[in-house]
Amino acid sequence: MLIVMDHFASPEQVEAVCQRIRELGLTPQPIPGGERVAIGVLGNQGYVDEAPFRDLEGIREFIHVTKPYKLVSRDFHPEDTVVRVGPVEIGWSRDPVVIAGPCAVESAEQVRAAARAVKAAGAHLMRGGAFKPRTGPHSFQGLGYEGLDLLAEAAREAGLPVVTEVMRIDQLEKVAEVADCVQIGARNMQNFDLLKEAGRAGKPVLLKRGMSATLDEFLAAAEYILLEGNEQVILCERGIRTFERALRNTLDLAVVPYLRAATHLPVIVDPSHALGRRSLVPPIAKAAFLVGAAGIMVEVHPDPCRALCDGPQSLDFPSFTRLMAELDRVGRLREGG
Amino acid sequence: MLIVMDHFASPEQVEAVCQRIRELGLTPQPIPGGERVAIGVLGNQGYVDEAPFRDLEGIREFIHVTKPYKLVSRDFHPEDTVVRVGPVEIGWSRDPVVIAGPCAVESAEQVRAAARAVKAAGAHLMRGGAFKPRTGPHSFQGLGYEGLDLLAEAAREAGLPVVTEVMRIDQLEKVAEVADCVQIGARNMQNFDLLKEAGRAGKPVLLKRGMSATLDEFLAAAEYILLEGNEQVILCERGIRTFERALRNTLDLAVVPYLRAATHLPVIVDPSHALGRRSLVPPIAKAAFLVGAAGIMVEVHPDPCRALCDGPQSLDFPSFTRLMAELDRVGRLREGG
Amino acid sequence: MLIVMDHFASPEQVEAVCQRIRELGLTPQPIPGGERVAIGVLGNQGYVDEAPFRDLEGIREFIHVTKPYKLVSRDFHPEDTVVRVGPVEIGWSRDPVVIAGPCAVESAEQVRAAARAVKAAGAHLMRGGAFKPRTGPHSFQGLGYEGLDLLAEAAREAGLPVVTEVMRIDQLEKVAEVADCVQIGARNMQNFDLLKEAGRAGKPVLLKRGMSATLDEFLAAAEYILLEGNEQVILCERGIRTFERALRNTLDLAVVPYLRAATHLPVIVDPSHALGRRSLVPPIAKAAFLVGAAGIMVEVHPDPCRALCDGPQSLDFPSFTRLMAELDRVGRLREGG
Amino acid sequence: MLIVMDHFASPEQVEAVCQRIRELGLTPQPIPGGERVAIGVLGNQGYVDEAPFRDLEGIREFIHVTKPYKLVSRDFHPEDTVVRVGPVEIGWSRDPVVIAGPCAVESAEQVRAAARAVKAAGAHLMRGGAFKPRTGPHSFQGLGYEGLDLLAEAAREAGLPVVTEVMRIDQLEKVAEVADCVQIGARNMQNFDLLKEAGRAGKPVLLKRGMSATLDEFLAAAEYILLEGNEQVILCERGIRTFERALRNTLDLAVVPYLRAATHLPVIVDPSHALGRRSLVPPIAKAAFLVGAAGIMVEVHPDPCRALCDGPQSLDFPSFTRLMAELDRVGRLREGG
Repeated sequence: MLIVMDHFASPEQVEAVCQRIRELGLTPQPIPGGERVAIGVLGNQGYVDEAPFRDLEGIREFIHVTKPYKLVSRDFHPEDTVVRVGPVEIGWSRDPVVIAGPCAVESAEQVRAAARAVKAAGAHLMRGGAFKPRTGPHSFQGLGYEGLDLLAEAAREAGLPVVTEVMRIDQLEKVAEVADCVQIGARNMQNFDLLKEAGRAGKPVLLKRGMSATLDEFLAAAEYILLEGNEQVILCERGIRTFERALRNTLDLAVVPYLRAATHLPVIVDPSHALGRRSLVPPIAKAAFLVGAAGIMVEVHPDPCRALCDGPQSLDFPSFTRLMAELDRVGRLREGG
Repeated sequence: MLIVMDHFASPEQVEAVCQRIRELGLTPQPIPGGERVAIGVLGNQGYVDEAPFRDLEGIREFIHVTKPYKLVSRDFHPEDTVVRVGPVEIGWSRDPVVIAGPCAVESAEQVRAAARAVKAAGAHLMRGGAFKPRTGPHSFQGLGYEGLDLLAEAAREAGLPVVTEVMRIDQLEKVAEVADCVQIGARNMQNFDLLKEAGRAGKPVLLKRGMSATLDEFLAAAEYILLEGNEQVILCERGIRTFERALRNTLDLAVVPYLRAATHLPVIVDPSHALGRRSLVPPIAKAAFLVGAAGIMVEVHPDPCRALCDGPQSLDFPSFTRLMAELDRVGRLREGG
Repeated sequence: MLIVMDHFASPEQVEAVCQRIRELGLTPQPIPGGERVAIGVLGNQGYVDEAPFRDLEGIREFIHVTKPYKLVSRDFHPEDTVVRVGPVEIGWSRDPVVIAGPCAVESAEQVRAAARAVKAAGAHLMRGGAFKPRTGPHSFQGLGYEGLDLLAEAAREAGLPVVTEVMRIDQLEKVAEVADCVQIGARNMQNFDLLKEAGRAGKPVLLKRGMSATLDEFLAAAEYILLEGNEQVILCERGIRTFERALRNTLDLAVVPYLRAATHLPVIVDPSHALGRRSLVPPIAKAAFLVGAAGIMVEVHPDPCRALCDGPQSLDFPSFTRLMAELDRVGRLREGG
Repeated sequence: MLIVMDHFASPEQVEAVCQRIRELGLTPQPIPGGERVAIGVLGNQGYVDEAPFRDLEGIREFIHVTKPYKLVSRDFHPEDTVVRVGPVEIGWSRDPVVIAGPCAVESAEQVRAAARAVKAAGAHLMRGGAFKPRTGPHSFQGLGYEGLDLLAEAAREAGLPVVTEVMRIDQLEKVAEVADCVQIGARNMQNFDLLKEAGRAGKPVLLKRGMSATLDEFLAAAEYILLEGNEQVILCERGIRTFERALRNTLDLAVVPYLRAATHLPVIVDPSHALGRRSLVPPIAKAAFLVGAAGIMVEVHPDPCRALCDGPQSLDFPSFTRLMAELDRVGRLREGG
């Protein structure tokens, strides 16, 4: 940590800060500058708490050099983590995976048709929501446990492992029982208790980035899961909220190579939720492959026009099949491959 | 709803949309413009679903005129709602209330000292956190149920009703038992299951605006609670996340008069979390009173420099006492008073 | 335009709005809804002004269906515009172009070396700044007219057309004389007088998106140039400012296919300014090609570590040469190709 | 400056950085931490350039402790600057001033009526735009030089000094001749050449914050003006662009006390442009007074409903007169008074 003093801080104030650092068993290192003195704190093993310094006069700012996470960082875990969802392996250095399926489970027919179609097109995992977080309470909220069973059955028939979202702690046990990977949605990225419990549920976790979460906060949220002893975590970028509303969210693919350097956990991209428009999904899905994402997550629906949820961004089966063929060609040129 | 057609939409495409509207038992009203045709949908009683139109060609955009909430809106409930927390009344037309206390409960001594001091200075309700949502798992997470008991006891001794945060559904029963008002924090504003369950807990709910929630989303979140039959909801503005990082969040007080026109629910302001710096809290607290907020929520700690959580934004007792006197003077000039 | 009335608007208020619409020679079309009446305005040839309605009671909102631009829109100009910069053609349906060179002209040697190297690697146009907009006045501000001459000479020797930024109107004449394309930077995107004058300067204009400009504002800014009779305009996406500061700006490549549908003007991407880090430039440059951008603009410097401006994001010659080879492979898979 | 090394940086890499610091005549100060080494740079007189370090291996981040401005900072100029616009004094410690008038000059009658009315109500300065920056080229662009003369004459008759916006350098001479203060608008805040030339025009400058400018960038923009020898600069906060679109911009009044500590230049607030709605202007204008702003700038129009520009946010004469009386009462309670 660096403690930056005010321009007008007196030598006595600087010394008081140094004295407090020494009392904590650490070593102060004053760094006089042109405009003000900064004091380095030496000897700490982790994050230094600001609290013991707050009553001292003449301090302008605390600059933390240590991040609020450790287990997720490449610094302490240089090798890639490979997450295993059923027989599928997801990791920076593995072939990219495609997770596909409808936004919401609507009926046995719909989810079965989707499972067959995405399997036939070459998807590796099936997605589908039984519990749906919706901005307003008057929108379709999902079929619940019934939907969960329909999803699990359809995926099993098709021979695909399943990823599905959990919204509350008391759903975890049942979801972990029937699904191969538990998803935590963007709105729950900082629902810390759900993170902790998901970390103990015994299944891989797919964690989506919150709409207004910084990358540091995203990594700190994943740290909650790893701290429970579960390293099988997939991070999913799905765009952030900005002033631009022409597109639903703003998706910066540079996050992929950035996170590849910062963490050993695999990062996938969800262009469907990021963009909110069907026509933009294929180009950005391919771009995500190209920049090296460990996979993508795409919404596919037998009849997007009649979908109960997120229809405008869902691909139909022919479009998805075309996309799979194109992804294959792009895959050969991808980063870090 | 208004369905805006593409510039190049054919008359057949326009007619197909009109036909679909008629099939739904509604009435189409084409509005030819200089650049494109728009089609009004007449006769609906609530939000019109876009789904039945999504497979039609030539549609550029859907414009919703109806909002995704109804119960929270002034349109359907013109009179102010007055929320009763113990003997305290909170409402647009009532005297503004002051909710004060430490960020986190740390010890019996700390919370008791805080309770006495804020009561003596004239606060109407006590706040204090037993369960603390923290960005990183390595930070202090609160004392939990033990902290809850300490808080309740200290407040009872001081004769103050208590507001405290709940983070998970299984905490609700116990919290509703000992607290007079249940708080849902900014990170949980779209934890929809928690909202629903809180709506059934039998106590007033204080709902904080999410860091990146629009005002419409904020109101739609409150709608989840009202739909469970609980109208006793207080909304709390605490600033939003923007590109400006010199201040912790960006707090626009114009939200207060804006929401006063939009909803019958009372709105209070939390300058401590919004600003993150002690020296900025008093001026903005007073400004919140002036623009007509139904109350404010302020962090007060016996020894802010040694607080385990949010010390830099907490007021000490003498500063809080001074603030209360100043609020009193400002109160006489407030909007809508 | 649609005029949405308040929920409580009286029939007399609705009629007063209809009457005002008729006075303007237009036709009112009331659309009664479940919660409120909306009134369509029919018969307008362009944007309808709100001013004549502002003194009327009971109006909640004006919804504009017509955009504030026309000349730049695909609606009125379905064929792609091809911009000619010297012998180079830039357009959605043309081969993508690469514009490369140093951020700032620093010396005859530096700019000559850069010109030769980018030419040898296959770049189509040369970029380089003589006038540099800098956040603080204490940073290097460019070599000015002397730099302009050095740039022009180096590019001519290498056989490359030149793009360079103009910051003030009185620089336009000289810049238009020596450069093949005039650039207007992000900070000047809404310097409307500069846009107008650039529109009259007789050279193609490369217009960068402002850091906080919506896509509609970006297109409206380009409209200023086209209105002066100059259709030779290239739009350049370079990311927007958001709360995320781990990357310099936030660059959403979905803007490329979005704008392809909205405008006939070609759109290129500048990953160097968007990202601010050398290592992220090649993957995002390739992704821009893949999603169908009409070109990219990349900073290349003989010795990035000693660059006077934006060194951390500049590629050195070997990296740029490698990137050109990779772009070539990606180009074969690009959208709309 | 602090140079933070990678976790895996070798001792040789650390030494190479130290060596480079020494070569620059400065002193390196390694600060070993729990996760990585940071190296303080000692002995610099101003901002340390990163360039000489960019080719070194193992560097993770540069942290600047010194800001990119100096003349505008309280650190080097502790006493308040008082700006004199005609006989009016504007400064943190002076009585707050009110600048009022129409958004745009429309006619001799309109501007004369406005001048008389705002003078009668007690305003200290008159505002009015002759040159209007508009998002789209099809909107009213102002009366130009003719409007400037009308404004100057009306203000002279009413006995009020005049503030008016300049959009291009070649307007500066004439504007500085007839106006008492030259305004630079939000869209031109980083039009650095206009800033420099305005700094030489011999009149006080009112500089508005850019829509997406950080406070540091705002201060750095003002530094451009002071560097030309002109300290007579007024800063004007007018809200920033955020994801929230219910209000036009997002105006955080905490910026006022924050800037009071950071700079000696006076800061005023423009609630009209920030909020875009007439009904929200008076409460926020009063709140700006309360938190200690050196003044406010308000749009007033004889007939807001027929205004050619920004009518929805303009006050009429009776509302403005009422506001002035209320401001007077609030003024007695203001911060730092």
